[in-house]
Amino acid sequence: FSGAGTIRVTLFPGDGIGPEIAKAVKQVFSAVQVPIEWEEHYVGTVVDPKTGSFITWNSMESVRQCGIGLKGPMATPIGKGHKSLNLTLRKELGLYANVRPCLSIPGYKTRYDDVDLITIRENTEGEYSGLEHQVVKGVVESLKIITRQASIRVAEYAFHYAKLHGRKRVSAIHKANIMKKTDGLFLQCCREVAEKYPDLVYEEVIIDNCCMMLVKNPALFDVLVMPNLYGDIISDLCAGLIGGLGLTPSGNIGDNGLALMEAVHGTAPDIAGKNMANPTALLLSSVMMLKHLKMNEPAEKIHKSILKTIADGKWRTFDLGGSTSCSDYTKAVIDNL
Amino acid sequence: FSGAGTIRVTLFPGDGIGPEIAKAVKQVFSAVQVPIEWEEHYVGTVVDPKTGSFITWNSMESVRQCGIGLKGPMATPIGKGHKSLNLTLRKELGLYANVRPCLSIPGYKTRYDDVDLITIRENTEGEYSGLEHQVVKGVVESLKIITRQASIRVAEYAFHYAKLHGRKRVSAIHKANIMKKTDGLFLQCCREVAEKYPDLVYEEVIIDNCCMMLVKNPALFDVLVMPNLYGDIISDLCAGLIGGLGLTPSGNIGDNGLALMEAVHGTAPDIAGKNMANPTALLLSSVMMLKHLKMNEPAEKIHKSILKTIADGKWRTFDLGGSTSCSDYTKAVIDNL
Ligand SMILES: CC(C)[C@H](C(=O)O)[C@@H](O)C(=O)O
Ligand SMILES: CC(C)[C@H](C(=O)O)[C@@H](O)C(=O)O
Repeated sequence: FSGAGTIRVTLFPGDGIGPEIAKAVKQVFSAVQVPIEWEEHYVGTVVDPKTGSFITWNSMESVRQCGIGLKGPMATPIGKGHKSLNLTLRKELGLYANVRPCLSIPGYKTRYDDVDLITIRENTEGEYSGLEHQVVKGVVESLKIITRQASIRVAEYAFHYAKLHGRKRVSAIHKANIMKKTDGLFLQCCREVAEKYPDLVYEEVIIDNCCMMLVKNPALFDVLVMPNLYGDIISDLCAGLIGGLGLTPSGNIGDNGLALMEAVHGTAPDIAGKNMANPTALLLSSVMMLKHLKMNEPAEKIHKSILKTIADGKWRTFDLGGSTSCSDYTKAVIDNL
Repeated sequence: FSGAGTIRVTLFPGDGIGPEIAKAVKQVFSAVQVPIEWEEHYVGTVVDPKTGSFITWNSMESVRQCGIGLKGPMATPIGKGHKSLNLTLRKELGLYANVRPCLSIPGYKTRYDDVDLITIRENTEGEYSGLEHQVVKGVVESLKIITRQASIRVAEYAFHYAKLHGRKRVSAIHKANIMKKTDGLFLQCCREVAEKYPDLVYEEVIIDNCCMMLVKNPALFDVLVMPNLYGDIISDLCAGLIGGLGLTPSGNIGDNGLALMEAVHGTAPDIAGKNMANPTALLLSSVMMLKHLKMNEPAEKIHKSILKTIADGKWRTFDLGGSTSCSDYTKAVIDNL
């Protein structure tokens, strides 16, 4: 039933381990009786026999209608000319900002303590334009596109996010010493937006230096905002500091609150269907989704339970060197609620 | 005098702390009686009053004639339209491969032990083409150029280096899942060269994943080869693992053995002239230079002495949290020879 106050949410379980980790989320949400109803759609490498397509109009429309979605990993169909499904979703739905909080997980020890970083990535243009061609044999070029419109809106999102979450500093990451015009425009937009937020410290850091400082002392940073490719790189680096993509949530944000949260790790085809997956990234993404929906109570409840389960040390899935199954881990999260 | 067997070497002390750290190298080389003679030239932010230029024909010609050079940091002249002097030298001299060994320094503790990585970066094209323009107001584009010629030669250099130095694995770093044509061509060239080196393990790693794996477990990698910008980013990340750019040497390699070794850290204008600089990166670069010249004996002698001085723990320059002056550190290196 679609009861009063029930929110419809699109769910794309995805490929590989996707269905298993999506099941974990559904079970945890049931246990907490989160008032949402899933609209499940398959988007992934398998072609829809009716439409011959990897992604259907229905699936996209579902996210547009619900305004909110959760997705598991999707493999890109192999063969020439196939565009990544992840990118297609981001582009078609106008999901212009990609937000990845990287926070140390108490009880899961890495070389870094107390990491607390938010990467905010421009999600629609830059090096991801898809515009490439061969000039002459042996000479190919690729176009990086930076626009004022996309740079301003991601900068605005970043500063707004920083203020809303009580953060102190926004660092714009760039290589404008080399790409003076493209990254220069990106910085110009960040500066303009920064002026509207005098309470936040604004700084500009060159990407190579940023990577060096992140591995030396991540506490130097707080919120980082950057063009598409740098965001791709830096967000993975930051995830590495706290243990990897299996432990980090991600959200893609568009206009009017449209949002698609996702686990950004791979589909792990080798362990798919074997009850060996770690559902943490998708669970944390679902927490991010609940917060986005302002359902803070169930969000906090689930978040605390995930952290408690990991801190316990008894429930380590295979990717973290343990032998707990996906279903046992999920059960532990439910027991800890 | 230019005695029999004496090798002439171009020296660009550079800006900021450049002259101080260059002096350290000259003193250590004197102490070891390395049979070289310096041809010192100023290249840096200060304009040559005679030519009105930042870089003179003489300076370039000196490197071409000597075939070998050592450079300190150079600041890029401020103002529109000035090209980085570092890049000008790389481009004009055809220095197509940039090699940065990142090895843990015993006695200088970081979060990572036993790091032993070699990054080899294409040094002439890619995102550094300098080709950028505004399409319409608010829309700018930048061209990344990948050529078969430049990709093959840097791949050949990387595999040759790996074999020569008894290394086991070469990883090509790319983002060909997005930039299918440009990074695709780079990978294609690496694969072709890899076939000629069946004893070396060849693998391809996506840059975001590479950064995550490097911070989680750098021992997964050995020699890394990549296009220009990825090399810029990854080499700084790797330097960060062992303590930063103050501790890493760098070499730019061209045709016929032409080589310009350099300290890649900044000019540190705030401490320039105060005897507070750390000359380690330039000293290690000079060791790399001696090895390139097959002068292995003085190279080893100086290298051991640097490591001994650092391992001592007593001689920490300011950048490493100590209070040893540049000259005292240099004296310690000489005493430890
Ligand atoms: C799968 C890939 C196309 C994607 C990207 O490059 O954006 C991924 O790395 C990510 O960060 O979400
Ligand atoms: C100074 C700068 C132009 C240079 C580069 O981007 O190559 C530097 O970062 C380096 O790695 O040598």
